[in-house]
Amino acid sequence: MNIVVIGGVAGGMSAAARARRLDEHANIIVLEKGPYVSFANCGLPYYVAGEITDRDQLLLHTPASLKKILNLDVRVNAEVIAIDRQQKRVRVAGPDGEYHLDYDSLIYSPGASAATPPITGLDHPAAHWLRTIDEMDGILARMRAVGDKLRATVVGAGFIGLEAVEALVHRGAEVTLVEFAPHVLPPLEAEQAELVQRELRARGVQVKVGTAVKAITDVDGTAQLALSDGSHLMADLVVLSTGVTPNTELGADAGLQIGERGALVVDGYLRTNDPAIYAMGDAAQMRQQVGDHALLGPVPLAASANRHGRRAADVIVRGVEGSADQVANADAPPRVLGTAIVRVFGLTAAMTGANRRMLDALEVDYITAILHPADHAGYYPGAEQMHIVAHFAKADGALLGAQIVGGNGVANRINVFATALKGGLGANDLADLDLAYAPPFGSAKDPVNMTAFVAQNILDNTMPVWYANDVEQVLDQALILDVRSARECEDGMLPGALNIAHTQVRDHLDEIREAAAGRWIAVVCASGVRSYLATRILRGNDLDARNLAGGTLTLDATRPDWREL
Amino acid sequence: MNIVVIGGVAGGMSAAARARRLDEHANIIVLEKGPYVSFANCGLPYYVAGEITDRDQLLLHTPASLKKILNLDVRVNAEVIAIDRQQKRVRVAGPDGEYHLDYDSLIYSPGASAATPPITGLDHPAAHWLRTIDEMDGILARMRAVGDKLRATVVGAGFIGLEAVEALVHRGAEVTLVEFAPHVLPPLEAEQAELVQRELRARGVQVKVGTAVKAITDVDGTAQLALSDGSHLMADLVVLSTGVTPNTELGADAGLQIGERGALVVDGYLRTNDPAIYAMGDAAQMRQQVGDHALLGPVPLAASANRHGRRAADVIVRGVEGSADQVANADAPPRVLGTAIVRVFGLTAAMTGANRRMLDALEVDYITAILHPADHAGYYPGAEQMHIVAHFAKADGALLGAQIVGGNGVANRINVFATALKGGLGANDLADLDLAYAPPFGSAKDPVNMTAFVAQNILDNTMPVWYANDVEQVLDQALILDVRSARECEDGMLPGALNIAHTQVRDHLDEIREAAAGRWIAVVCASGVRSYLATRILRGNDLDARNLAGGTLTLDATRPDWREL
Repeated sequence: MNIVVIGGVAGGMSAAARARRLDEHANIIVLEKGPYVSFANCGLPYYVAGEITDRDQLLLHTPASLKKILNLDVRVNAEVIAIDRQQKRVRVAGPDGEYHLDYDSLIYSPGASAATPPITGLDHPAAHWLRTIDEMDGILARMRAVGDKLRATVVGAGFIGLEAVEALVHRGAEVTLVEFAPHVLPPLEAEQAELVQRELRARGVQVKVGTAVKAITDVDGTAQLALSDGSHLMADLVVLSTGVTPNTELGADAGLQIGERGALVVDGYLRTNDPAIYAMGDAAQMRQQVGDHALLGPVPLAASANRHGRRAADVIVRGVEGSADQVANADAPPRVLGTAIVRVFGLTAAMTGANRRMLDALEVDYITAILHPADHAGYYPGAEQMHIVAHFAKADGALLGAQIVGGNGVANRINVFATALKGGLGANDLADLDLAYAPPFGSAKDPVNMTAFVAQNILDNTMPVWYANDVEQVLDQALILDVRSARECEDGMLPGALNIAHTQVRDHLDEIREAAAGRWIAVVCASGVRSYLATRILRGNDLDARNLAGGTLTLDATRPDWREL
Repeated sequence: MNIVVIGGVAGGMSAAARARRLDEHANIIVLEKGPYVSFANCGLPYYVAGEITDRDQLLLHTPASLKKILNLDVRVNAEVIAIDRQQKRVRVAGPDGEYHLDYDSLIYSPGASAATPPITGLDHPAAHWLRTIDEMDGILARMRAVGDKLRATVVGAGFIGLEAVEALVHRGAEVTLVEFAPHVLPPLEAEQAELVQRELRARGVQVKVGTAVKAITDVDGTAQLALSDGSHLMADLVVLSTGVTPNTELGADAGLQIGERGALVVDGYLRTNDPAIYAMGDAAQMRQQVGDHALLGPVPLAASANRHGRRAADVIVRGVEGSADQVANADAPPRVLGTAIVRVFGLTAAMTGANRRMLDALEVDYITAILHPADHAGYYPGAEQMHIVAHFAKADGALLGAQIVGGNGVANRINVFATALKGGLGANDLADLDLAYAPPFGSAKDPVNMTAFVAQNILDNTMPVWYANDVEQVLDQALILDVRSARECEDGMLPGALNIAHTQVRDHLDEIREAAAGRWIAVVCASGVRSYLATRILRGNDLDARNLAGGTLTLDATRPDWREL
């Protein structure tokens, strides 16, 4: 059997290795356009930072090591320039000229290319990308050439952009981050992204969101960036991280079907419309399932690329029936959860499943639980607060997506939410989930359990909520009852708010009823816990009280101007 | 509505608080036998250690604070001495004498008592338990009285016993740990417990397993312990942690149904056989589901006690239909997963679901995946190895249970396995699970994915395995092929083993075939990864090769004498 693999990183290399393990006698050739295979592309920012100090650590394998261990024929600097589906052969441009290779099965995993943003002057020597070893070396060379007092601008505040910012600050640079979207990490909810922005600013990063770079011009060897707000930035180094485009031109030329946003259409077994060709990774179209809705498009994440390479090899060697991974919905694109995580200095931001924007676009009926629990028992030293935003379906309480920003324990809980999504679990299941508890690791009621309790309370109307985004309407409609202590309220309250501490609410029911004057009561505290207790007291006395989801912590991150509305 | 709660910690207090939140006007009385309510019993060892320095931190609430916040009538030093089910009243012995309380609903959550082991001389002033604030204070007083150079013996190596050991070492004591079972943490698999025992010994703890304490006698104010192996120990302090017995005497006297190991029978809504009485926590019978089998008995863990208190309050106030938690199998006892975690110095040990002993007792057909992955990408600094043992059903690949011993990332992955158990996920699902990946947090193929890959390979016979426990039969039957490097093998191999490094196997097939002489080939490496590759090469050449699950790392922990067999 001749198996040809286009692309020697992540998906392609996982497929090649698994194919060899399943078939000792197959002829497996891996063609990598660049000079390196199987390198740790996710590690590049950490090498720039100086956290990873041994460059060889990034080069996980070489053609020689792959020959020795897996008997693979790995060719670097070998670019496939045409696919001939009739003849089942690819044309390769290698270091020594062009040649053909015949295949029985072709694995198409060329990855994605950096999307070129509409910025003039990108050929300035200060401007660099950070997706390959060579590009990383280019950044490091530029940093050495500039020397001390490096002024750096990172364009694009996605995962790699933020990792680049952290790396450059770590190396002593003065860093500006420019993001076109309204906030950093665009898939994150706005109030969660605000926490990340605060952390960036606290570390000395200048953050410019809702801002585009329009042009780069040269001023005595330094880049001058013209921004959409009319301002200018001087930068010795510009790191561009403005998204990627699937490398599917070759496949499209060969007549493979292209789906959403340029990605190749594959089924649950990674088969394209040509049964001899499999695609995966950044080049293939994935499916994010949101209730009954399917969102299609490329989801360029390393983990699914690796797993799908493995699955494709199974299908090639053993057929669909013999594949280790049996897929429930084989005709649909592979389902991914979109789980992602990034460390930003002292913070960790993580997400899985759908966010508000996706849910609103799909017109899903959902509620949102917002809470700020500690990662472990408060009485044990070192507890860190985490900020959870989780969406549940109104119809049946199914978990739809979750995001967490915090310190310790964020990766742990986002993984629990991801697993719950995979298992189709809902608020009821998560409320009854036995998670690991000892004081250094968690709480008897884990943050995930607490999230589910909040969701249950919203879903069954035990605790109706109002959301920080709606603060202006609420000010028009409701009595604001702030149940924090008088001392906390000295820093400011919502306009017109009545302050009665939560422990005093039972003794001031008449006063509250009078102040409400028929309006509903919008109860407020710092995190949503004390206001929940007050909400229950008021509702137990036939008052229409609703709790501010996430409290002033969330209000602050949503509408920093809330005290002056 | 009159709600009377017996027991003011965990389950009882959760029930009382939830009942108030759901019913502002109920009359709720909490009766606690001891002097403290709602204290942090899981925090006691950490206060002994000096890690928690503020004693007030352990006292989460007082009767006064609970009155203020939740309008609860909490009575300490108030012991219920009889339940009259006909009259629906309890008789209480309080500080000021005896009295009756009428109830509409009674919540029975008195917890468990320390089981008294068959040791004479337990009244020696050195002998202490560690389950209450008073007992903790007693230990600290004894430590102060003895002063420097404290010799301590901890009897019982369960969770609290190990936490006590750690605490006492932290305070400079010379500590001996005596455990009756063959290894510490009896629910842990033997090879996992061995890792914990090594850590204990590395920290200077003398560990005596398979050993009972028979008697304590006094020698000049010091305790002398007579052990079952005939030896004696001198101890200034003896901390007893030998398990617990459900406090169900009162319930039994009132005719409530008692189930396995003395626990009260309850249904999925925590209802006893008396519809007005609910039980939970250490006193109630739980169900651990293992495939089609249900294991019944008390599972004394704080987390489920808290959650069940909440659920019981829902049922009392709103009825089963109105309960936030809808239970699938309401007639059966509440399902728990038995998820637990403990820190032992630099190690973390965690478990969820069934272990080998449970599976063997239930005659479940299962396979075991054993692996030793790093908690995050190896090229990023600080990766720590974790040791995973996970069981899957042979029939359908369903996850049955998992245990992890390691450092960072253990709590994270055990929670993923627990969530997977809750969702009924199997190897196929976990192989396709999108977990959070960035180099500081995980790997593109997460340890959980890897566990599933290994399980799939065993289940579909891609990689037949043999287990370290069977090493003696294997030595009789098979050719041992050790594929580690010659240098690694200098430290010893299994008797009669042939050493051919995994990268050389393809070139030595004839030699291996000849050495096997018709026997099957038991392939060995350090962790099971290289031997997997070799197993596949051999099987691809029609040789019956099987891989040692977990490699010599697991063999070492199972049979430390393996080199001399």
